[in-house]
Amino acid sequence: MPYGKPTRVVIALGGNALGDTPEEQITRVREAAPTLLKVINQGNEIIITHGNGPQVGMIQKAFTYAKEVNDKIPAMDLPECGAMSQGYIGYHLQQAIGVALHKAYKRWHVATIVTQTEVDPNDPAFDNPTKPIGAFLTKEQAESEMAAHPEQQFVEDSGRGYRRVVASPEPKKIVEAESILNLLDNEFIVISTGGGGIPVVRDYTDGGAYKGVAAVIDKDMGAELLGEDCEADLLILLTAVDHVAVNFGTPEQRDLDDLSVEEAKRYLDAGEFGKGSMEPKVRAAVRFAESRPGRVCIIGSLEKAAEAVAGTSGTRIHM
Amino acid sequence: MPYGKPTRVVIALGGNALGDTPEEQITRVREAAPTLLKVINQGNEIIITHGNGPQVGMIQKAFTYAKEVNDKIPAMDLPECGAMSQGYIGYHLQQAIGVALHKAYKRWHVATIVTQTEVDPNDPAFDNPTKPIGAFLTKEQAESEMAAHPEQQFVEDSGRGYRRVVASPEPKKIVEAESILNLLDNEFIVISTGGGGIPVVRDYTDGGAYKGVAAVIDKDMGAELLGEDCEADLLILLTAVDHVAVNFGTPEQRDLDDLSVEEAKRYLDAGEFGKGSMEPKVRAAVRFAESRPGRVCIIGSLEKAAEAVAGTSGTRIHM
Repeated sequence: MPYGKPTRVVIALGGNALGDTPEEQITRVREAAPTLLKVINQGNEIIITHGNGPQVGMIQKAFTYAKEVNDKIPAMDLPECGAMSQGYIGYHLQQAIGVALHKAYKRWHVATIVTQTEVDPNDPAFDNPTKPIGAFLTKEQAESEMAAHPEQQFVEDSGRGYRRVVASPEPKKIVEAESILNLLDNEFIVISTGGGGIPVVRDYTDGGAYKGVAAVIDKDMGAELLGEDCEADLLILLTAVDHVAVNFGTPEQRDLDDLSVEEAKRYLDAGEFGKGSMEPKVRAAVRFAESRPGRVCIIGSLEKAAEAVAGTSGTRIHM
Repeated sequence: MPYGKPTRVVIALGGNALGDTPEEQITRVREAAPTLLKVINQGNEIIITHGNGPQVGMIQKAFTYAKEVNDKIPAMDLPECGAMSQGYIGYHLQQAIGVALHKAYKRWHVATIVTQTEVDPNDPAFDNPTKPIGAFLTKEQAESEMAAHPEQQFVEDSGRGYRRVVASPEPKKIVEAESILNLLDNEFIVISTGGGGIPVVRDYTDGGAYKGVAAVIDKDMGAELLGEDCEADLLILLTAVDHVAVNFGTPEQRDLDDLSVEEAKRYLDAGEFGKGSMEPKVRAAVRFAESRPGRVCIIGSLEKAAEAVAGTSGTRIHM
């Protein structure tokens, strides 16, 4: 839209694409930044979000293991580990985007906002926690943890030991949306809602205070809500493949350029998409496309993000 | 200034005031928030910054100890640990200030900006690292670390073992100042430059990219620079005592309400103030007061921050 209002785009990077060490993360975000810049050069305002699965897992495990060596290291629960991961990833992302902007003689600035996502304390997900997190424990370790923290639940996980499970509630509100909107209006690239946001609930017995809850927000749904709360027109969910496909991994695999919400729902019902990989992306895409007329979601690869926005790569999901 | 432009105030909280565990930190910031709100109610715009010594130490030790248990945990150097500490502390601070605002029916918002502070790679401090960080090691551990990381230096520390030492260079530029200014103009309380900021240098062989350096920025000097770069009128350095004192801890102790830059320099030269506690605060105060006519720094206690702004507590340092 060369003469109109810029299109506002939420771009979601996968946590797996960020590597497992600080050095890998710096390399990966440096590789990603020029692609993100192309999307700005297409005349868009961009908000960047990212997964944090491997990173929050690493931080949480570090605190768990460290306590074995020195019991002065405090226990660090998921919300605090999530906040740390946002600082850690945001810092490298803003450096990488900053130098890409600088090299391209652009005036835009980049900022990372520590972001909370409100969930409903009565979300049914809290009755049935399913998301395994943290280190594998022996049965004895798990029992001792449960005795010390009666609110925590542990389950046996695929024969490898016991792991804590937490709920994955629906994200309801991006608490820091005003900050993001404010910066976007002034030529900022905003990094926000890492890992779906730090999950919080409001405590109305305490003045409506936001308080962290041990939960995992689906990062694609977090990105979707970020798009809704920040008035985005376009949601781009980046993954390891260029397109959503049906009959994936079979001789009949068919890559999709275009997918209506109606078709997407049919495929979802038929179980076409990989649980925990493509399925949550397609669900988030459907929700975004249905949220307001004209909204579009594109699922595609990081390498071809600019082509996806231009319409020559990726799968467009729309009403 | 009831009818004029609001006074812009940087308030610096000490890292020691934040406690040693997530639970303590939540309690401490909840206690501090109403005081910070009083300063807003006096008609000021506020930027909050904070130390992170105990917190960044905790994070770094957690990664060091964790590696002993599981060598898949990556080494995490100071800039990344600093970024994590900004997320961790900012998250709790924004929650606490958020509920204080909500309870007071205020429209202000609060946001944490992950903040880098640029230092000069030719700062002489890099030739003589003096700031001990991280866990105490045995001589053998220190030698093995030095073999693996030839750029790191370790020294014997007060008979308790070997510790890594890093430089404490002068902060030169708050990289994210534009983000902060932007949010301040729109009724935001901004949390920034935690721990003096994540220390970075520009690499002009690589497009001017900012890159993290293992260093510790003095948090009072970081707060001072934040005040300069964000056009603040007033800098408030909060500590455990109500006033700067001369002959501290002796029968001749005299608390100071008012201190000119000239007197302050005389006292500094005479070694009146505690190294690593009051001395760096008075140095930062002098620098701020000298930076522009009319600028004032107040050193006082968190409990009496509002009284300090009103002029009935604390020590005012001015030209």
